Parts: sequence; C-alpha cells; structure tokens
Amino acid sequence: MGRVTVRRRVLRFRDGVSAERPDTLAAEEPMEIRVGPAGPAPRPPLAVTMRTPGHDIDLALGFLFTEGLIGEPGDVVSAALCAGTDTPNTYNVVEVGLAAHVPPPATDPARNFYTTSSCGVCGKASVDAVRTRSRFPVAGEPTTVAARVLADLPDRLRAAQRGFARTGGLHAAGLFTPAGELVVCREDVGRHNAVDKVVGWALRDGRLPLRAHVLLVSGRASFELAQKASMAGIPVLAAVSAPSTLAVDLAHQVGMTLVAFLRGTTMNIYTGPERITG
Amino acid sequence: MGRVTVRRRVLRFRDGVSAERPDTLAAEEPMEIRVGPAGPAPRPPLAVTMRTPGHDIDLALGFLFTEGLIGEPGDVVSAALCAGTDTPNTYNVVEVGLAAHVPPPATDPARNFYTTSSCGVCGKASVDAVRTRSRFPVAGEPTTVAARVLADLPDRLRAAQRGFARTGGLHAAGLFTPAGELVVCREDVGRHNAVDKVVGWALRDGRLPLRAHVLLVSGRASFELAQKASMAGIPVLAAVSAPSTLAVDLAHQVGMTLVAFLRGTTMNIYTGPERITG
Repeated sequence: MGRVTVRRRVLRFRDGVSAERPDTLAAEEPMEIRVGPAGPAPRPPLAVTMRTPGHDIDLALGFLFTEGLIGEPGDVVSAALCAGTDTPNTYNVVEVGLAAHVPPPATDPARNFYTTSSCGVCGKASVDAVRTRSRFPVAGEPTTVAARVLADLPDRLRAAQRGFARTGGLHAAGLFTPAGELVVCREDVGRHNAVDKVVGWALRDGRLPLRAHVLLVSGRASFELAQKASMAGIPVLAAVSAPSTLAVDLAHQVGMTLVAFLRGTTMNIYTGPERITG
Repeated sequence: MGRVTVRRRVLRFRDGVSAERPDTLAAEEPMEIRVGPAGPAPRPPLAVTMRTPGHDIDLALGFLFTEGLIGEPGDVVSAALCAGTDTPNTYNVVEVGLAAHVPPPATDPARNFYTTSSCGVCGKASVDAVRTRSRFPVAGEPTTVAARVLADLPDRLRAAQRGFARTGGLHAAGLFTPAGELVVCREDVGRHNAVDKVVGWALRDGRLPLRAHVLLVSGRASFELAQKASMAGIPVLAAVSAPSTLAVDLAHQVGMTLVAFLRGTTMNIYTGPERITG
C-alpha cells in the first residue's frame, strides 16, 4: 500500500510566476497477472494492467471474475504477489493458481491481455467476443433506492477517496447499501481497475452476487464498467458523469438500473427507473 | 459521422421532481481493425476498440502507428471501412492492407487486441512489452511555448469540442502550434482513441513527426497517452487534469515536456521546463 501516491518535484506556474515545489502524483505501474493450474510457479502471463499499486490480489481476482474466467472463491487455490523477474522485487506480478476443475485460459506468450490505466479488458479478436455473460441475472431484482439517498452518495464517496484528495488523479468505485452506507471504496488510475478491486474483494469475501447494492463510479459510465457491474450481479450502477450509448444498451438488456450525471439533487435515470423511489 | 451522438429518453430527477425528457449521449461502439497483406479481403482481425464512430480510418492508422506496426504512409496500401459480418452494415470494421515490405502482425484469432473506450492498447503479455520505441526522438527538440499561450489552450480546445458540449461524455485531443493555433481536434469516448485519431490524421497527411507542436488532452495524462505522443514525435504534451507517475517517468526518459493541471493561468510543469517560457 506504500505506492498509491508518489512525491515529485514540479515547476508550478501561477499568473506568470514560477516556483519549484513538491507535488503528489497518483502512482501508475504495470501489473502482470499469471494464471495456471495450482502447483509450483511460474504460470504463463495472461494480462498486464496499468494500475495503482494496492489491493493487487483483489484486482487480479476481480479481473478474472469479470472476464468470466473464474466464478467463485473455490475456483482459486492460490493468489499471491510473487517475485517476477525484477531485482529488487517490485511486487508487480500476481500469480493465481486455479483449482483442478477450472480450465486455464488459453495463453499465447506473444499476444495477450494488456490493459492500460483506463482500459477495461483486453485480448479478444471479434466484436461478439467483447460481451461476457453474467451468471447473476439482475432483471427483476427487487432492490429499491431513494433518490435522496443516491444524491448523497457522491459526497460520501469523495470523503472516502484519500488518494484523490492528495493527487486529483485517481478514479474511485464505491459499493453502497440501498440505505447509502459505504461498504467498500477502492481507488485506481484506471476506473475499470477500481471496479475490479471492489469485485475481487467481494469475491474473496464470499459476497457475490452483490444483490441489494449500489455501485457508484467517480467518472463516466462506459460499456466495460456496466459489464463488470452486471457480471457481479449489481442491480444499480450510478456514475457522477456521463454514460455512453453502449453502457445504456447493456444496462437495458440485462435489467440493470443505470443512473448518471449524479450531481447534488439532480440525476438522470437511463434504465430501470422502477428501482429509484422519489 | 452520423453517430457521434445518439438521442435517448431519460428520466430526470431534480430536487425530488422527475420528468421524462430527451438526452444526448456520446456514442460508443466496437470497431474491429483487420490488418494483413494488400489484396483481397478479408484480413485477420487484430484489435477491437470501443470508440465513438467517426474518423475511423484515422483511428485505425493512428493505432497501428502508435503501436509501432506501421511507420509511414507508404506502409499502408489500402484502408477502408468494410462490411464486416453485420447485416445491415454497421461500418464497425476497418480493413488495412499493408505494403509488401511491411511484416503483418502476428494474429491469433482466439486472443487478440481489445481496447475499451478508455484503453490505450492491448495484446502484450509481459511488462517489458508495454513499451514501444519511437522512431522520432524529441530530446533536444528546440520548440518553445509561452506559458500564456498554454494557458489559453483549454478554452480553445473546449470551443472545438462540439460533441462534449452536447453530451458531457467525450474526451478530446487537440493539436496546436507553439503560437496556440488549433491544427486539429478529435473527440472520442476513449481518450487514447482521440489521440490515435489525431496521430492517424497526421500520418495520412504526411505531417509526422509532429515536431513543433503541442498536444493537449482534455483529461488526465496517463502512460499510454505520453507514449502515443512520444511515438508521434510530439515535444510538448499538456493535460487539463493530473498526470500519473509513469507518464512523468516516460516523458522524462524521452525528453518530452509534460504540463498538467493546466487550468487558467496555473499549470504544473513536470518535465522539460526549458520548452516553457515565462
């Protein structure tokens, strides 16, 4: 957890006057995920994600889960930060050992998953393959949330965003109860990573599916975030900023409630309005 | 160009009162890039990117260039939106035919590039492979930009962001001269796509390397954006929001000037301050 932020010297211009001063930056480092059968390492690399260090095991598990490669805690026998090839150890490699009943993903060392700090998931060749299928349908899920509760969530998330307060450079994902209680908050330079860290935590804690929860993201709602929420069985996805067409389409198709432009007491409900009470 | 934005019905809550009204969303659709030797299609799929339709050929060329797969206009014999497998044609497939002297990328139909709407580039297995090497070094490049010119650029970019004005959901990349003149502006739900569209346009127009230019991005400066700017030979990268550590590290290593938190007359210069004049 020591590298969420990094101090650097910066030359600051203000109204024509420049001065050197320290600045706190959001850390971004590559993390390699290696996946294979349980037993002695090393396993083949599956993905590289550009992420903010911290909660790396949850990030790896959330990534594997939202990609449909694992489905429950029992699918994973071991998950550990390992030495990798760096000297000294940079703790930028996570090794995941799968249970015998889980087919390991096909890996090709030359061409593999690579996700940047703002990328959801990589490694698929055709448009059809972009979609994953959730084992936790949310259509008809009966959760309701009061609009006044939703209106309070951005402030509650912001209060929990310790890294953002220091850097201005971290996205956040917050999991809330329908009463507006914060369950967990995760930050990352990549918005998809923040969601994966939440989902990985929930998987490890035996909390999936996340029925009767609201997931709030600090930025925009894109396709990949809606898909990750759908994979985790989350019935209500809320975003501080704008949604994309494909996020709205996916939410509509799976019966998820999508709220965006959630700012103060104003919000837009794009899908599933039956879950929002006035 | 007809699908940059899409109209949808939305339920808007404001101060406890809800009303249905139309809303304009940023379009997000998958685009498949197919690459192979010149000649009859089809070529194998290389990548799927979640993007906002428009300037798709430039997006494909910029992606291939910033990934180091092509280096100059003569490397490409043909580039066209093709029918794909959708009926009716959704214009979501770009076919690129390479000149005979360009080795086609290794493609594996099962595991390939996939970039989401906020992802830079995908398909690499090891941490080392994330880095590309620019054919256009910028260290020592003599461009200078006045701080007061930089201070004006965000407003100029915003004025050119027609899609953002309607949706609030589009990132932008703007290429400027050192005098602050806008050369080209591109918008996309993915910030990396906006940069690729600028670079692809420059490639097609014979303008690479983009020495003596400033690239301004509307959001944060992450590793992938710094890398794409470096690949295009851009000496000055400016961002409205925060940079990540790895973006600063890369800019330092290649001798690029990185300015961030560019807001009004305040800005932070993280690397290459010799190019900014007070």
